[in-house]
Amino acid sequence: MRKKQYLLQEGDVCKTIAFVVKGALREYNVDDKGNEHILQFALEGWVISDLYSFMTSEPATYNIDALEDSELLLLTKHSQEELLKRIPKYETYSRMQMTGAYMAMQKRVTSILSMSIEDRYLSFIEMYPNIVQRVPQHMIASYMGLTPETLSRVRKKISNSL
Amino acid sequence: MRKKQYLLQEGDVCKTIAFVVKGALREYNVDDKGNEHILQFALEGWVISDLYSFMTSEPATYNIDALEDSELLLLTKHSQEELLKRIPKYETYSRMQMTGAYMAMQKRVTSILSMSIEDRYLSFIEMYPNIVQRVPQHMIASYMGLTPETLSRVRKKISNSL
Repeated sequence: MRKKQYLLQEGDVCKTIAFVVKGALREYNVDDKGNEHILQFALEGWVISDLYSFMTSEPATYNIDALEDSELLLLTKHSQEELLKRIPKYETYSRMQMTGAYMAMQKRVTSILSMSIEDRYLSFIEMYPNIVQRVPQHMIASYMGLTPETLSRVRKKISNSL
Repeated sequence: MRKKQYLLQEGDVCKTIAFVVKGALREYNVDDKGNEHILQFALEGWVISDLYSFMTSEPATYNIDALEDSELLLLTKHSQEELLKRIPKYETYSRMQMTGAYMAMQKRVTSILSMSIEDRYLSFIEMYPNIVQRVPQHMIASYMGLTPETLSRVRKKISNSL
């Protein structure tokens, strides 16, 4: 898919789990005031989906679009069920992958609750150096729940203290 | 275990996943300034653990203690491996349970990023009415990343508008 194309739009049912072979995507929701809030980025080797919509067939509450020209491997619910039935190791892989995603999300909640904005940004660039290089700063601000101005101030403060 | 007893202290390795048979527990970390930040509550039927420490045998970064006298079913890593080996349905259960926990955590991040404090609290009491009844308000404030004063102001505002 090409840059800026949608894989999923809010209100549609999410019919696939996408494995990113090449490229970069983001998953985000839009609040009452029209502001975008990024839940997740996905680069090569990562997985992206509106999991709740995929599992329940309820309308998606998130949008997913491409930040770069991307190649995806799409897994439908039917293919996933077939894989789970036929390849026990896929179930193990899937459980481990979900455990990893859950632990990363726990870490993110704890960093929001208990770390200063400076430390949160330093931890983000340490964990995800590739995202920092490939994603525009205003999207990283959105992911962190900051305005672009606040993030820019934090980055200046950090670079001055180096 | 009795109320206020620890199941896990930061710095120790987390050796078990705990299924709550009866009672209530919380999992929290302590920041540089000594403030507690609650990652999770667990009531009957829920699971609680420092999963990263459990998986990697690294020292725990969270504490877990009992908010009420509680009865737990403790699963060690060895028991978990045995269950996974012998009972394929346990792997399915475990994958689904992890998927549910991950989706709940996604929802929490999105609510922090994109909802007003009032709406976050209303959504919390709708999702977790039992927690609101059994857990002191200052702990719910800690879970939401608010001061007890802010939460108390939000609750007054909500009850005035009813």
